[in-house]
Amino acid sequence: MVGAENVLVDDAARLARATGLSYLDLLRRRSAGADFPVPDAVVLPAGPDEVQEVLDVCVTHDVGVVPFGGGTSVVGGVAALRGDKSSVIALDLVRLDALVSVDAESRIAVLQAGVRGPEAERLLGEHGLTLGHIPQSFERATIGGFAATRSAGQASSGYGRFEDMVTGVRLATPRGEWKLGVAPASAAGPDLRQLAIGSEGTLGVITEVSLRVRPAPPVRRYEGYALPGWEAGREAVRDLAQHHALADVTRLSDVDETEVSLALNAGLKTTALRRYLAARGVSHPCFLIVGWEGTAHDVALRRRETTRRLKASGAVRVGKALGESWRHGRFAGPRQRDALLDQGVCVETLETAAYWSNVDELRDDVRAALTASLGRAIVMCHISHAYETGASLYFTVLTARDETDPVGQWQRAKAAACEAITGLGTISHHHAVGVDHAPYLEAEIGSLGVEVLRAAKSTVDPSGILNPGKLV
Amino acid sequence: MVGAENVLVDDAARLARATGLSYLDLLRRRSAGADFPVPDAVVLPAGPDEVQEVLDVCVTHDVGVVPFGGGTSVVGGVAALRGDKSSVIALDLVRLDALVSVDAESRIAVLQAGVRGPEAERLLGEHGLTLGHIPQSFERATIGGFAATRSAGQASSGYGRFEDMVTGVRLATPRGEWKLGVAPASAAGPDLRQLAIGSEGTLGVITEVSLRVRPAPPVRRYEGYALPGWEAGREAVRDLAQHHALADVTRLSDVDETEVSLALNAGLKTTALRRYLAARGVSHPCFLIVGWEGTAHDVALRRRETTRRLKASGAVRVGKALGESWRHGRFAGPRQRDALLDQGVCVETLETAAYWSNVDELRDDVRAALTASLGRAIVMCHISHAYETGASLYFTVLTARDETDPVGQWQRAKAAACEAITGLGTISHHHAVGVDHAPYLEAEIGSLGVEVLRAAKSTVDPSGILNPGKLV
Repeated sequence: MVGAENVLVDDAARLARATGLSYLDLLRRRSAGADFPVPDAVVLPAGPDEVQEVLDVCVTHDVGVVPFGGGTSVVGGVAALRGDKSSVIALDLVRLDALVSVDAESRIAVLQAGVRGPEAERLLGEHGLTLGHIPQSFERATIGGFAATRSAGQASSGYGRFEDMVTGVRLATPRGEWKLGVAPASAAGPDLRQLAIGSEGTLGVITEVSLRVRPAPPVRRYEGYALPGWEAGREAVRDLAQHHALADVTRLSDVDETEVSLALNAGLKTTALRRYLAARGVSHPCFLIVGWEGTAHDVALRRRETTRRLKASGAVRVGKALGESWRHGRFAGPRQRDALLDQGVCVETLETAAYWSNVDELRDDVRAALTASLGRAIVMCHISHAYETGASLYFTVLTARDETDPVGQWQRAKAAACEAITGLGTISHHHAVGVDHAPYLEAEIGSLGVEVLRAAKSTVDPSGILNPGKLV
Repeated sequence: MVGAENVLVDDAARLARATGLSYLDLLRRRSAGADFPVPDAVVLPAGPDEVQEVLDVCVTHDVGVVPFGGGTSVVGGVAALRGDKSSVIALDLVRLDALVSVDAESRIAVLQAGVRGPEAERLLGEHGLTLGHIPQSFERATIGGFAATRSAGQASSGYGRFEDMVTGVRLATPRGEWKLGVAPASAAGPDLRQLAIGSEGTLGVITEVSLRVRPAPPVRRYEGYALPGWEAGREAVRDLAQHHALADVTRLSDVDETEVSLALNAGLKTTALRRYLAARGVSHPCFLIVGWEGTAHDVALRRRETTRRLKASGAVRVGKALGESWRHGRFAGPRQRDALLDQGVCVETLETAAYWSNVDELRDDVRAALTASLGRAIVMCHISHAYETGASLYFTVLTARDETDPVGQWQRAKAAACEAITGLGTISHHHAVGVDHAPYLEAEIGSLGVEVLRAAKSTVDPSGILNPGKLV
């Protein structure tokens, strides 16, 4: 039904859809003897109707289906697990690549699930619009993936998390199509859009997403500040968040991450900058990136408020170069990992979020857990998403790779971090659950929560073909 | 277990928990021969643990449970239906009246479910805080009811809808306690808080709600504007919403509602005002109420932006008197109905929301449906909640009561309005589903959506004791 040329069974095609981009995924891809599941075939439907037809056939023949977008999951979300099925396909949505419609009056655009970040911006740009959703996975990740994983972009303070942008979703399920979202807000029972968003391919294959869009911003202004230490930085960000003065991008590095920036950022005159900051009482700086996007009037107005509050919080302005260098390097992180891996480094990130009164304890506990597990390690942390009631914490870990058991080395460290997170914060602020976080979900949503998700799944997917082994 | 004095079986107590506040409820209460279900007993537990114990007993004895808060439902949400149960109790949560905790750093307060609006503000006010949730039902409705029905307050543009305020919920269910909400945002699967919010007592009895709170505003400023007609008014509100310049309260009346305000508002010098507006090109005014709350600095800043945009949209300032008179009369609507009922008037409200490109067609269709059903009728409409992608529409209907069949008269008109809404907007923006809107839910969330809700209910409430006959 999709055409023979859109069913791929060669090894290269199947391997390309077998893993995501976690450190362990990269290790597996580099290791000749690695053992990981690979889909039996890759199927590339052309649109929502073909997705539904493929699902119907998979129900008939009891074939597992792993929806595949950009393949950027770092939690095992696209692992080709087959559960109790004898075969499994990767359902690659790359051909669902259209801008379906634009409602300029309502500021809503409908995009197909396979549209990647840059293409979404290009298609919307033709209408003078933007989505403004720029996570680090932006270059490869897709609209459907953003919705399936409750993604949060780097400018979430301004544009919102992805779920804040979604006005409607269209899903293909083993029980037929399911469409949700008829109004900007509703009291017609529970918000089932919020059940579809974050369902990670287990409750249906998202084929189209209706999204709130905005005029493309004529002005983008990014700047850097330095705060005297973590506590001052965290309090400055909390002050902004609780006074509605956050910049669209607001990103605070801790002292360790700032030191690495100072060491590696070629655009900064480091010695002069250290002297400049020290003269202003900032000897252990925490860098803060702030960025505004919008009309000149709007950016000026909001920048004035943010700046006024930052100065009152003791922030010292570093200037545009720091902001711009962050903006231009914002997608480089994942690409740098290959070079580090070549040099025998274990490098990975993990993230969480908590209410403000738990943020410091959570950061301390996760750092301690990682260090206890790994021994000598660099553990850096930043806040990239702030809210009135709390913030995200994003950790980057580097340590010498244990070449005798590199997988076990990281699995133990990750488990220690997850144990530290449980009870203080969420097991994931924007990476999702996948396989890696599934053991910790019950502690967060309760055994009843897990049972409710399973009941929802059994309803829309009675034979359990959708993304076996993920989420619950 | 709750003490004999907290189990009421007298007629007055049972009748007082038998209905909400819809027009049909008021008719039933006035009619000597009216036939409507009444709970067999009223049970008043003292706290979350007692709620759980009562549920456990009701499971054992297969007794239906209707959670009861302020009793302000206008959609039959507290009707004492018993489904397949031989007995049913009203579980009155009035004794769950405590402020449990305040986390000032995270700006989170935990309130028990039975706390009424004014008491919530008083308890929080002792800590210098406010919730800012002021729906028309504020004086009687409860925290648990706000959560159970996805309430939206009159200042939702500033403070958010109730679901935006909820960081966590604690529910008693027939399967035990269920707690949700560990972080300000999460990608740990679907947001199950959004399944609990709007569950209308069918998925559990909400016993505590964790809420984002804000400092009590030192300044409140309310003003009135007039726009030249509905289209100009709607476009002015859309402009504010899409430029993040909404006042905390933003409320646009259509020409008909404005005419009634002009006729009834004793605080306005009507003749002079009409002359003043006509001289400025506004011969068929639509009143717009705008109100800001916050610090003097914040109110001044945001008021400047709103005002600048309103003037560009052709709005003519009417002044503070109009804003303040609305603010002081904001809860009077429901109380005025008794007087109108005495005079043989059929008076009721209904509401919906839609994306901007559907707003006018929806308003026209609902007005036409009501007028076609009722014959001569006054149908007024206002926008009280605006979003980037759309707005709510709230209708007030007055017509001569058909004394031979007053119930049928309104049931037919309401059904016609609901049919007009279906397909263009949501069946409820903030009144919820209850009994009255249940027939229209499937058209909005799909048969799969209804099945998923039923599956969730079967999971947490296998014997179906919770609020039989509501929602689904």
